[in-house]
Amino acid sequence: MAVYTAVDPDDLAALVAHYDIGTVLSCKGIAEGVENSNFLLETTGGRFILTLYEKRVQEGDLPFFVDLLGHLARQGCPVPAMIRDRGGRAIQQISGRPACIIQFLAGISLTHPTPAQCAAAGAALGAMHKAVEDFSGARENSMGCAHWRSVATAAGDLDTVLPGLQAIVDAELAFLDDRWPTDLPRHVIHADLFPDNVLMLGDRVTGLIDFYFAATDFRAYDLAVTHASWTFSDDGRTCDGARASALMRGYASEIDLSADEVAALPLLARGAALRFLLTRAHDWIHTPADALVTRKDPAPFLERLRRYQAADAADLLRAG
Amino acid sequence: MAVYTAVDPDDLAALVAHYDIGTVLSCKGIAEGVENSNFLLETTGGRFILTLYEKRVQEGDLPFFVDLLGHLARQGCPVPAMIRDRGGRAIQQISGRPACIIQFLAGISLTHPTPAQCAAAGAALGAMHKAVEDFSGARENSMGCAHWRSVATAAGDLDTVLPGLQAIVDAELAFLDDRWPTDLPRHVIHADLFPDNVLMLGDRVTGLIDFYFAATDFRAYDLAVTHASWTFSDDGRTCDGARASALMRGYASEIDLSADEVAALPLLARGAALRFLLTRAHDWIHTPADALVTRKDPAPFLERLRRYQAADAADLLRAG
Repeated sequence: MAVYTAVDPDDLAALVAHYDIGTVLSCKGIAEGVENSNFLLETTGGRFILTLYEKRVQEGDLPFFVDLLGHLARQGCPVPAMIRDRGGRAIQQISGRPACIIQFLAGISLTHPTPAQCAAAGAALGAMHKAVEDFSGARENSMGCAHWRSVATAAGDLDTVLPGLQAIVDAELAFLDDRWPTDLPRHVIHADLFPDNVLMLGDRVTGLIDFYFAATDFRAYDLAVTHASWTFSDDGRTCDGARASALMRGYASEIDLSADEVAALPLLARGAALRFLLTRAHDWIHTPADALVTRKDPAPFLERLRRYQAADAADLLRAG
Repeated sequence: MAVYTAVDPDDLAALVAHYDIGTVLSCKGIAEGVENSNFLLETTGGRFILTLYEKRVQEGDLPFFVDLLGHLARQGCPVPAMIRDRGGRAIQQISGRPACIIQFLAGISLTHPTPAQCAAAGAALGAMHKAVEDFSGARENSMGCAHWRSVATAAGDLDTVLPGLQAIVDAELAFLDDRWPTDLPRHVIHADLFPDNVLMLGDRVTGLIDFYFAATDFRAYDLAVTHASWTFSDDGRTCDGARASALMRGYASEIDLSADEVAALPLLARGAALRFLLTRAHDWIHTPADALVTRKDPAPFLERLRRYQAADAADLLRAG
């Protein structure tokens, strides 16, 4: 759930007046995005998302996101591009925050995707990877493998989350540090393509959204994150074989992974499970239990990690 | 800010299938309403608000709200009527909550209304009072004068909010108890028509919303609540004469207050200021300072109370 910065109606009218999108009809704060303030803005020219960037998104990163989403939209990917005003500016200021007016995309986020929907998501991820190959921008992945140890340290005593978790994490960090690949194909990836960040209508993907973790990393790691978030039961204990093979098949319809990438997938999936286990554990420890934000339970990502550690993990990561 | 109950996409599709409003295109949680979960729902048939009623709204009160808003909408008031499904049902169940699909109204809420906008709000309140006169429903005002003493007690030690507040409140409760009218014109009133509950486009009122405090009480008390919330500076220290007289003039264009009502207005306004002072003080004491809901400062309503206690208060409450 997002925390909202209020927008003054007069300031909003003045902002919208810079664009060729008509005049304001309605503007409602929406519960979307991680830590930005988002509004569903309706004008006489259509519907848009107005995003005010709060502290998590660095203002200096905004031109990267504008360029990335513009590039992907021009390539036909269903992503919410930032709109430019009559002066060509995409990044504005309102209520003391940097802000963008963004394309509205129809569709709803799934909670329990079917195999057909997993196939569509895999294909959309693959098509996005194809489209981003010739994108010249780059951004360090501050949530990538090199940073997991510091996320773990910042979290504090992991045993307060789940007894024994600290030792499991320490062992996994050591294991991954020794083996993490260095030379797989890399480009800008989404890095957080959970079902809430994909809009669908029926079996059709209508939007890939919330690119604010997008950064340069292995494309196969992006696929591993998507696998970890789309193919498991809510408790993380069971990977659904039909969903998993459909997701991998959808991706393979767009991208031909190299043998090295296929071989690395179980390791990358362990990394993906650990990354979300760590950030959830961090938020679990640092969010008061009575706060009105939902703390996401870290345990289902420990379960996923265990599943990916198993000897037969490669079977789950095959297009089948 | 609202707390959201999640809605499963399949459940939503099944709910919408009961209505003649097409199929779901988008559904986003919005930060509107006091303690309900609200979603902006777009279907192939238009835009709607989906409200899930959380604990503050009693399920047994829902038929009253459905009837009231239906009555007002039929009389031409710009209120968000609940839509009925093909079976004539307005009250549904989703995610274990009672829920309604409601008309969407364009417009935005003002933060700093102009005199012309205050006049429009006053006229809209008056027109609503005219329209409700022949409404047969009734509901006890659980936030009315008879309940203020128990709100004060439930709040706890008011001096922890502002030093000296307990004595001020005790004296005001005694004053109002002795003098509160018993025989002014009464019918169902909105009882909470703050600027956030009025949607406007320019100087035109396009929506009166959030009727969930609506109850049977003096119509002149409703006008006093609206006066207290539309005509003061943010800190509550200054009543803007131009806004106040415009609001009263707008109301007078629809409703001819009796001499008794005009005479009672300063007292009713003291009551209105006390009612919001007490509920804000209650929430101030009972909401942790670090919670992610904005605690509304009680102090500006103490300032309003002081202003309405002054000998010349009647001047502020004249159509002028």
